[in-house]
Order: sequence, then C-alpha cells, then structure tokens
Amino acid sequence: MGSVNGVPQLFLFVLSWLLLAFHANSSSDERSTYIVHMDKSHMPKAFFNHHHWYSSVVRSLKSKKPTKSNHHRFSPTLVYSYDNAAHGFSAVLSKRELETLKKSPGFISAYADKTVTLDTTHTPEFLSLNTANGLWPASKYGEDVIVGVIDTGVWPESDSYNDDGMGSLPTRWKGECQAGQEFNSSLCNSKLIGARYFNKGIIAANPGINISMNSARDTMGHGTHTSSTVAGNYVDDASFFGYAKGTAKGVAPRARVAMYKVIFDEGRYASDVLAGMDQAIADGVDVISISMGFDETPLYEDPIAIASFAAMEKGVLVSSSAGNAGPALGSLHNGIPWVLTVAAGTIDRSFAGITTLGSGETIIGWTMFPANALVERLPLLYNESYSACNSTKLLSQLPTDAIIVCKEATGSVSKQISVVSASNMQGAIFVSDYDPELFELGGLSIPGVVISTHDAPAVINYARNGVEPVASIKFQQTVLGTEHAPAVAFYTSRGPSPSYPGILKPDIMAPGSLVFAAWIPNTSTAQIGSNLLLTSDYNMISGTSMACPHAAGVAALLRGAHPEWSAAAIRSAMVTTANPLDNTNNPIRDNGLINFTSASPLAMGAGQVDPNRALDPGLIYDATPQDYVSLLCSMNFTQNQILSITRSNRYNCSTPTADLNYPSFITLHDNTSTKFVQTFHRTVTNVGGSAATYKAKITAPLGSVISVSPGTLVFGKQYEQQSYTLTINYKTDGGEIISFGELVWVEENGNHTVRSPITVSPFMS
Amino acid sequence: MGSVNGVPQLFLFVLSWLLLAFHANSSSDERSTYIVHMDKSHMPKAFFNHHHWYSSVVRSLKSKKPTKSNHHRFSPTLVYSYDNAAHGFSAVLSKRELETLKKSPGFISAYADKTVTLDTTHTPEFLSLNTANGLWPASKYGEDVIVGVIDTGVWPESDSYNDDGMGSLPTRWKGECQAGQEFNSSLCNSKLIGARYFNKGIIAANPGINISMNSARDTMGHGTHTSSTVAGNYVDDASFFGYAKGTAKGVAPRARVAMYKVIFDEGRYASDVLAGMDQAIADGVDVISISMGFDETPLYEDPIAIASFAAMEKGVLVSSSAGNAGPALGSLHNGIPWVLTVAAGTIDRSFAGITTLGSGETIIGWTMFPANALVERLPLLYNESYSACNSTKLLSQLPTDAIIVCKEATGSVSKQISVVSASNMQGAIFVSDYDPELFELGGLSIPGVVISTHDAPAVINYARNGVEPVASIKFQQTVLGTEHAPAVAFYTSRGPSPSYPGILKPDIMAPGSLVFAAWIPNTSTAQIGSNLLLTSDYNMISGTSMACPHAAGVAALLRGAHPEWSAAAIRSAMVTTANPLDNTNNPIRDNGLINFTSASPLAMGAGQVDPNRALDPGLIYDATPQDYVSLLCSMNFTQNQILSITRSNRYNCSTPTADLNYPSFITLHDNTSTKFVQTFHRTVTNVGGSAATYKAKITAPLGSVISVSPGTLVFGKQYEQQSYTLTINYKTDGGEIISFGELVWVEENGNHTVRSPITVSPFMS
Repeated sequence: MGSVNGVPQLFLFVLSWLLLAFHANSSSDERSTYIVHMDKSHMPKAFFNHHHWYSSVVRSLKSKKPTKSNHHRFSPTLVYSYDNAAHGFSAVLSKRELETLKKSPGFISAYADKTVTLDTTHTPEFLSLNTANGLWPASKYGEDVIVGVIDTGVWPESDSYNDDGMGSLPTRWKGECQAGQEFNSSLCNSKLIGARYFNKGIIAANPGINISMNSARDTMGHGTHTSSTVAGNYVDDASFFGYAKGTAKGVAPRARVAMYKVIFDEGRYASDVLAGMDQAIADGVDVISISMGFDETPLYEDPIAIASFAAMEKGVLVSSSAGNAGPALGSLHNGIPWVLTVAAGTIDRSFAGITTLGSGETIIGWTMFPANALVERLPLLYNESYSACNSTKLLSQLPTDAIIVCKEATGSVSKQISVVSASNMQGAIFVSDYDPELFELGGLSIPGVVISTHDAPAVINYARNGVEPVASIKFQQTVLGTEHAPAVAFYTSRGPSPSYPGILKPDIMAPGSLVFAAWIPNTSTAQIGSNLLLTSDYNMISGTSMACPHAAGVAALLRGAHPEWSAAAIRSAMVTTANPLDNTNNPIRDNGLINFTSASPLAMGAGQVDPNRALDPGLIYDATPQDYVSLLCSMNFTQNQILSITRSNRYNCSTPTADLNYPSFITLHDNTSTKFVQTFHRTVTNVGGSAATYKAKITAPLGSVISVSPGTLVFGKQYEQQSYTLTINYKTDGGEIISFGELVWVEENGNHTVRSPITVSPFMS
Repeated sequence: MGSVNGVPQLFLFVLSWLLLAFHANSSSDERSTYIVHMDKSHMPKAFFNHHHWYSSVVRSLKSKKPTKSNHHRFSPTLVYSYDNAAHGFSAVLSKRELETLKKSPGFISAYADKTVTLDTTHTPEFLSLNTANGLWPASKYGEDVIVGVIDTGVWPESDSYNDDGMGSLPTRWKGECQAGQEFNSSLCNSKLIGARYFNKGIIAANPGINISMNSARDTMGHGTHTSSTVAGNYVDDASFFGYAKGTAKGVAPRARVAMYKVIFDEGRYASDVLAGMDQAIADGVDVISISMGFDETPLYEDPIAIASFAAMEKGVLVSSSAGNAGPALGSLHNGIPWVLTVAAGTIDRSFAGITTLGSGETIIGWTMFPANALVERLPLLYNESYSACNSTKLLSQLPTDAIIVCKEATGSVSKQISVVSASNMQGAIFVSDYDPELFELGGLSIPGVVISTHDAPAVINYARNGVEPVASIKFQQTVLGTEHAPAVAFYTSRGPSPSYPGILKPDIMAPGSLVFAAWIPNTSTAQIGSNLLLTSDYNMISGTSMACPHAAGVAALLRGAHPEWSAAAIRSAMVTTANPLDNTNNPIRDNGLINFTSASPLAMGAGQVDPNRALDPGLIYDATPQDYVSLLCSMNFTQNQILSITRSNRYNCSTPTADLNYPSFITLHDNTSTKFVQTFHRTVTNVGGSAATYKAKITAPLGSVISVSPGTLVFGKQYEQQSYTLTINYKTDGGEIISFGELVWVEENGNHTVRSPITVSPFMS
C-alpha cells in the first residue's frame, strides 16, 4: 500500500468516509432518506408495476403545508424503486410522512439511510492456481461467469480490462455500459461488460450537491483494484515501482466484470448500495463481490444482507469483506448467514532491500522505497549518541551522503523513519522484527530498509568496529516463498458476528495484505521525501476489501466448473477445503496477537481458501432459501423484519431453528456458565462422483468433549445425502476462553477430506 | 543522459580522464612507458618468436647502475609485445635506455605512452531498419559477424547480452572469455562471445597501483552502452525511468560481441589500447567499434591509426568516434584515412511532459524527470515579481504544493532549474526554444517541463488571469517523429582532421544524442532533488561514443550481407548513400550553429547513415592497402614513421599521392589565396549487379566551378571499373569561407544514386 504523508491509504479511505457519516441523522420535521420495504402482494391491481405503486405511495404522503426547512424538498420524493434485491423503495420523507407511510397497505418496514464502510499479482500462484490442472482449466478460467462488483467504480482504460482472448458476451447478460461524465458507453468491452452508477441516495441526503464524477468512473482506485483482483485480464511486466514485478492477472482471468458504482467522493449510502445490488441481480450476474459493510446494523436493515438474500435465491454467491476493525473480537461486519464472509491474510511475498556491508556480508531487509535508489558504498554511521534516531537536531549534524544505522526502536519504527526523513540522509537501516502496520500496509518514503534483530548485531558491530565502514543497499527486490504465510492480517475484523453470532464468521481467509492490482492514474500511490508524490497504474494495498474479491474470483471459477451448484454449495466447498496450516505446515498465525499465536476460526474461519481443493470437495453442506428463513424465524425478529429480507410470503416460519446446515460449528457461552451441551444436525451431499464411505475424525476444542453420530457415513451414489449429529459437551471454570477444534470427514480411500472448524467462544457484549 | 548534481555524465567522463592525463610526462632519468615500433624483418633467426626478440631487446638495455628514482623499476620492463595491430612493443624505459634502444637493429620508432579521450532503442527504426526488407533480413541481422568493441568493459549480466535465438559460434573465432575479478569465464555466451582486459600500461605508468576492477567488468557503463548499441539482443519492455519504453536492441541484433577492456578507473593508456586492438585482430573480429580517440597525435603515433591499418589489411572495418569537442572547426580526432569516422546526430524522439491547464488546454513540453510524479490540479503561480526564478529567497516564500511558471530565461534554463529545485516546489514550467545542452544531454532532477515560447503565452495568460488557475503535468511521455531530425549534435567534433586534413572527415553521421542502451547497475543514471541518486539497467546518454557503435552495427550488417567487400568498400557504401536531408526533406541542421543553419560536411560528412540504401550502393570507391601507403608517402613522414603504421617493407613509396580514391572531396585554402585549381582522380567499381550507365549531377560549392570528366560512366558488367576526374576551380575574395556542394552519379534507370559531398574549407591553424 502506498501512503500519503505517512498515513497509509487504508486509513485515508476510512477517514474520508467518516466525515460523511453524519448525514443520516435528522430532527423532527426535516426530511431525510429512508429505505422502505413493501409487500408486493398488497400492490393494488390498478398499478402497472411496482414503480408506479411506490411512486403513488410516496406522492400520497404529501402534506398540505410545506415543512419548515429543506427548501429544496417541499414534497416527499422517491429516490429508488427496488425490485430484485428488495421489494420497496427509498424516499426522502419527514418523520411525520414516515408515520403516515407506516399505515399504508403493504408497508413492511422502514429505516433511515446510512453510510457504508469500505473495507486489494502473485496471489493466484500463492493460491496454487495453475494452468496444468485444478480449478483454472476446469473452469476455463471463468470465461462464462459474470462477476458484479459493487464498489467505487472502475478506470476502464486500465490495461487490466483489455479484452484480449475474451470470447463473445454470454447471451443472458442484460446489463449495460451506462454513459456518464468522462465515461462513454463504448468504454466497455468483452472483459468489462457493464458499468452503472447510483448516487440518488447521496443527492437525496444532500440536495443540490454537485457530484464531481457523475459516472461509473473510479475516482478512488478501490473499485478498480477489487474488480481487477477478481477478474483482471493478463498484463505483462506490471509492477509497483519495481516491486512485485510480473504478469498481473485476476483470480478468474477470463471472467467478465460488471461494475456498479455506489460510492462517490460525496458519499456512500445504503440506498445507493441497495440500488446497485438490485440492478446487478436484474442484469444477471453470477457472483457479486462487495468489499464494504454496515457496522452495527441488524440484518433486516442491512442492504447487503437484504440484497444478498435475493441473490442467494437466484444462485448468486455474494462474497463480502469481514471489515478492517480487528484485532478486537466481535468487530466483524457482513456476518450474514447466506453470504460468504472473507477475512484477510498475508501473502508469501516480501519487498526487500539487500544491504551489502563493506566486509562482504549480505543482509535482506524489508523496504518499499518506490525508486531504484543508488546507495553504493556509502559510509555507515552508528553511534550510541544519535542512533536512537529520535532527534532531528542530532541527525542534522551528520553528513548526508551516508547510511545511518538506527538501533531497535521501542514500538513501531515509523517515528524513526520520520526523523531520518527530515535529515535528508542518503540511506538508513532500521531494526524491527514485528511491525505489522508497516509490513502489512507498506509505504516507505526514504531510501531505507528494516532488518531483523537477528541480523542487526552484524551491521552494528561492523559499523562500530570496521575501518571506514561502508555499505550498499539495493532496492526493488521481491522475495517470494517467505515462511509462515499466510498469517491472519492484524487488521482483519474478528467474529463472532454481532448481527448473528450463532453462525461461525468469517467463513474463510483470502490474501488481503499488500495485494497488487490495477489502480487509477490520478492519485498518489507512493511518496518520496516530503513533497514528491508518485503515481502508478498498479497499486499495492491492504484490507479485507482485497481479500473479498479473491474469494469472489474463486467462487466465479467454481460457478464456471459447477454451474449446477447453489451459492451455499459453493461456499461449503470453499469452507470445507480451506487450509488451516501455513506454508511451513504449522497452524496459521495471527498477526493481531503477540508471540506468533495460532489464529482461531474467529479470525480466519476455516482457514485459507484453497481453490483447487474446492473444485472437488467430496461432500457439501447445502441450504435452501427456506432453510435460511427457518433460521430467521428463530431470531426473534418480527414478521415484517423477516419480510424486509425475504420479500415474499411463500416462505413459512413453521419450523424455526438456529440449527442451519452450515459447514462450520460455533457454540457460545456466557462467562459464568460452567457446563452445557449443544447438539447440531447436519446433512451432507455426496458430490464426489460415486459411492463413498467417510469416517469422522475429531479434534475437540480444549475443555470440550465432541461426539459425532454416526461416526461413519456411507453413500451409495452421487448426490446421495446422509445426516449426522455433532454434540459439544462443554465445561469450564469460567473466563473469556476461546477454544477451537475440528471435525474432518475422511473418505476411506483417502480421496477427500471434508473439514469443519468447531469454535467455542464467549458471547461478545 | 542522466546527470549527477546537474553535471551531465558526458562531461564527467571527460573530467575524470583529464585528471589521469599527466602520467605520460617524465623528466630525464625517470622511467616511463614508450610504445616502440620494430621492423620484424630484422629479427635475428635465433629468436623463437617476436616476443622473445622484444624481451631480449628490452633486457639488453639494462644499465649497470640503478636509476635514481622509481625504486620499483630498477630495470627496463617490457609491458606488451604487439604483433597484429603493430610490430613492436611497449616498455618502461628511461630516456637513456630509449636512446640506446634507438640504435638497436630493427628499431623503427618510439614515442611516449599517452592517454585516450572517450568520446538505444528506437534508433534502428529511426534508421529505417525493418524486418520486411533491406539490410536486416539481407544480413540475417548480422548473425555471422563478430564485432570487437574496444572500451571500458562490459556488464555481462545485462539482459542485452542474453543469447536467446543466437546460433553456435563462428568456427573462425579464436578469442576467449578471460577470467578476472568478479568475472568468471562462464559469463560469456553465444552473444557475448569474448571478453578480455588490458591494463599493463596503467600499471607500468603507476607502479604498485591497485586496479580496482581487474577484469573485463565495466565499472563506468560506457562499454556496456556502446556494445549493446552495436549488437545488443532483443529485450522487451525496457525503459529509462518510463521514457523511451519499448524493446531494446542493437543495430545488428544477431551479431556477436567481443569486449576488449582497455580503460579502467585508474587510467586509459595508448599502450593498452594498442594491446586491445592487437588482440581483437588476432582473435578474428570482423568489425571494430572504438568510441575514443587521441587528440593532437600524428598518425604514426596514434595507436588507433596504427592498429586500424592492420585491421584494414584484413578487411576489418574500424568505426571510430569523431569526438565531443564541437562545435569548433578542426576539433576532430580519429580523422584517419583508413577508418570510418562518425559524427553524432539527434534522434526523432523527444521526452515529454504534458501540461493540462484547468481551462482544458493541453501543452506538450520537454522533460526527463525520472519518476511518475503526481502533479494533479495544483495552483499555477505566475507573478512578474518572482517568475524570473532567479531568487531562492523569493521562491521560498511561496507555497510548495503548487506549480511555478518561470518566464523565458536568458540563456540556458539550468540556472532557473537549480533555483526552483532549492524551493522544493511540487511542479515547475520553464520556457525555452533552444537549449541543446539540456535537450541533447538530458537530465532533470525536479518535476518540471520546458515549454516553447510559442506555447508560453497561453500558460502565462491563464496563470495570470484565470480564476484560481490550476494545472496538471503528466510525466514519462515519449514523442516519436519529432521534426527536423536528425540534426547535427552541438557537441560533435568538426573537421577538417588535424591529423590529415586532405581527406574529408567525419565520414558520416549516426544517432548520438540521448541514445538508449544497456548500463551497469551500480552507478547513478538520474537524480531526484539534491540527494537522491537513482540507477537503472538502461541509460540514455549522448556523444559520438554512441554514434560510433551505430555505424559499427551498420558495417557489421554490411559485412554479413557482402562478405566479399573490403573495409573501404563498406565505408564507401555508407558514405555515398548517406542522407544529407532531415525528416522534413530539408538540409540537416547543425545544432552547434545558431538560427537552424544547414550543417556542412565538416560537421556530418556525407550525412546520416542509411543502412538499407548502403546495402545496394550501385558504385563503390575501393582502396587497397598500397593506396593508403601511397597516401602516407605523400605526407612528409619519415620512412620509419610510415613503417610504424605499415609494419612491412612489402609496400613501396614509388607513387606517393594525396589523391586517394575516397568517396568524398575536400579542398583546402589558406585565407589569403584567392584562386586555385585542384583535380581529383577517382575509380568506381560497379557493384549494382549488371550493365549500367551513370551520369554526373553536380551541385557546385559557392564560389567554385566543378567539372567532371567524363560526365557519363558506362559499365558493361558487374565489378567493372571506370575512372573519372573532378576539378575544382576556386575563387574567393578571402576570408574563412566554408562552402559545400556535391557530385551525384545518377544511374540512368534511376536505380542507384551515388553521392559524394564536396567541401571547400580553409586550413585550420
């Protein structure tokens, strides 16, 4: 990730959106935007379509006297009609009008519009995708699959959207390339097959506002990055200032991209997000990737939860980001039972500067300095008096054509970096083993490297005792295969899900830290010194926003390989084949915890997504729309709250149950209880191709006893289903203990293993 | 060309060599190095070979008592034996020993060792080389040709020396890959087929000196650049910090390179140059490229002249650089009648920054700022009070997140650049139409552009009168097809040749300004601000050093296409087909003269080399070794001086004549003479393939009457020869007048035109 004035862009994004977050509040008589869910079965026959009905409803709310303020808005105004992701509309209403509306026939629910939080090419190789076998060739690289990306828009001129090698458009595609500011409809092609934009919600909340880029063109880079991560075409010799050099490509390099821009410099509203998803479903996308989320929002007022339900009904898998509010537990958003919730992990790639001492010794350090700086046989400066590197004044007395060695800092090295930056030194060596904010978010505006405490003594001893000590530093090195990858990113939001803790979330982890993908050319991606901003066509940024499109890309490939699978089946395949081990075959570590502690499923779900294994999962845990409705019915929601999500009375609440047929297990305890038993019922479908016998292999969480019955599942043929129960017997002395284990169904011939994480977690208050 | 602290590297090269230039002087009893020419026919039969003889001669000079100083050198010492480029040796001798030596049998001449002065990738296309027809396919891209490059060594790991697509080595090759410091013999391959190094002359002049890179490895970049310009292999996606992006390649991309390193950080001596050329000839190279020269040196003491004679005898064309001492007349070196002397010209390529004003207007300016700086919609500052940009103090009071507009400078903008650099401004716009030092040598360490006086008013008016004027600048743009290219580079050395003015030198011009080719990775090629040096694997530098290997590459291609041609024939083909017009079909301009004056043949010879036309010149002016000897015999040299060059008594001085069969004409006058007549005799050989008739077409120089007899030449068959005389009748009122014209033999069917420039020049004192 590049940084501006030392502030990583991830946080810049969040910051700029917080500034816009106050618009949703309104007092008594003022009008503001509401999202309203309606029961279409109540639509009077007189109306030609739902839009006419909703318009009429809104018009009917008009009172005789104008409201006091909001001069531009004398009347209640319809913003959007929704018909695919939700049944209903958004409208600018006063509180009084809202109260009137609630009495209208067919009214289900209404809530104030709100703002969304946004959560980034070696990663396909890191995920073991390859041209010889597995999911890439099996899915023809996703060529028949359309991925709808709900985001900040797209830079259509990016090389990543070239359509070399792309066949003709799937005939089912109903989308369009919407013309707008600096965006004409000919900018789409066989790769970027659609682009639309949605900002009526922003305008409704801010009457008279000027939309500075009134089109699907991306002004932030985020949407260009996520959409090229899902399905960017092949681009040779791409690099981020010489780092990560190689052929850029998406996870599903032959899939199609349709962009739905719902986030603008001027705002990011639930009503627009819902409109974008509504249209994506209508246009016929196969997979939706949405790298944003609503915090502290119940499922029935969360446009992503609502729209995803409709998507799920049509077999469209929605991949969403867990959020960047980690490492605190219970910080997750998009913990929606019918979507895929994706955590972010690191990649087995490091960006390096190679230091060569005058003695000949060579040390590999971390750097992302964005230029091929020449730091060649310069004097090495180390002295206890100034090497804390905390005094600009002391450093300013040193010669600048030298390399300063700073001793290990307490905490982050970023403070030392800014002191050395002010000194204009030609090179710098810092010492740190653990600085996830720097190593995972990136950015270094001075020609320096960070070396480990293991390597530091050699440098310091030579600098102190060598005769005229000198060193050289070579930048722009990329190291692949770094050990203990993936690790859970420190920032990734953790479960349990506040919106529904009874389902284990996140589901899986995918690459999220320093992901390389396309960018827009008119923002800064890196910096040199205090005043030189640089830009590039590709950027390396970090977040669950970057993990989500990786998982969406895998889902698109699975959709291509298994067109008959439901969204739940695709998710099940990704969860039960995910890898809980890193590339050293040790448990994946959590960078948000100290001392390299193993990550829990609350951080990474079942583990790192494994595309090739997901192609052939053996068994799947499927779920129907009614299964999700039965879950909703168990949630203590009102009928109208449920109807806001389900839109239809065709579902029933006759068998409410929290026991969803999910591919993972979580049980929650309050800290006082010392003992309880929970039983889960599961049904698995044999997709392994023929008769098969599976045996249960259990690793119990600490403090629990797990039993599975039956312990053997015998399938006579493909698609046969078998059921089993899993019982957790939990006993503890109290305290906030998280423990985890697993159930693995192992096929007798060894062809398939079907793994489900089991997590025991306290409730989060 | 990159620059270091604002000093273009071209001049850095020259500077570092001047510092080493005093070594050749020595007083009375001290020993120093001499180059000694011997007559091998005097070698006593007792000696096994010449080396034994020379060793014995040197040993015999040893006097009884040690000399006073030079403690390391108690005895006269042999440095090199030469046998191919010259007959003789170099040795460290006292003046007394030298006197003794002069009395030895077989002694011809001796002179003190001296120091030498050193003087891509769109250029093949600029020279119209293409894969469809012409010289590239006709020569198989030079695949059977070996080019020996006498230079600073080579960086063998450069991508440009990859041997993809190179066939097996020519069997005649006798060279080797000499192991040395940081250079093992496995570093050569089918592209870089040989590498040797020669520094005994340095060590002889500086006893006990430590050679810091005692191998053929290049520590300067010059040799890597020239050798990859001649024959670098194809390298995709090369660029110089984003400029000149494309596939890098040499002029003869399939020819072989053999490097002879004769220049070291510690010195650059004639004795080493002679040793390198001696070995190149022995190894069996087909073409020699030597981008260096000896100033103010008579032919018989010039190792390049001496070695080139031996090369010429073997059919090896030597391409040499005219020097960078222009635009003064008579500043040329390597004006040797039997070599090709190459001047430098510009390329039809410009490096650009595109400025977009807030008003929408777009202006293309010149820049080489080495990064993709983001200068996006920043305030544009213009005010008469500070826009002279000559006061650091005034500029320091301005905001730095802005673009300063500097008004047209008197003279070079480089002073304004350094003032603005100190201000740390985020962007700058300068105004200049003519700044050859900047535009031809390159380098810009701040994010600025130079726009023309034609475009300046639009910017200044907008900056002065616009409401909150802003602008954006986009860097790293490359513009091809710029008009009035080539032009003669301002720095290229001009004729007449001080070492022999009676032959028109230079012969031709080739691309020399901002030539893109491979570089070494450990020196600075560009700079940002005051303290950040950058490096890159490719560099863009300027000089006749860069023009020489272009011509050598063309000669290599011609050698491949016409293996039967003599060196004189190859040169003749290049001269008579050279183009005196630029890409607007106007006479080539001279950047060393003001007001876009047309270039004279003293600056560019016959004009820009035209490889495809040189493949099929129609007629050639050939010359035998004896022809050159007859010329030497006319030069008022002693027999031994001549023998130093010719090495052999098999030539005779029976017909001394200055009337060499050269493909161009020059006549010299002292400024007082008002009238004279000079007649030239020429013989042309028909290489056009069949019977042909040519008619003379004359354009007389101002003040001269030209007559050619006969006016028609009729050839009955291929290889037939015809002779003619050309008479210049010159009359003037006096003064230093240079005038020029041409003789073109035009084939009746129009298939060939054979052009020779005619120059009337004053003697240079």
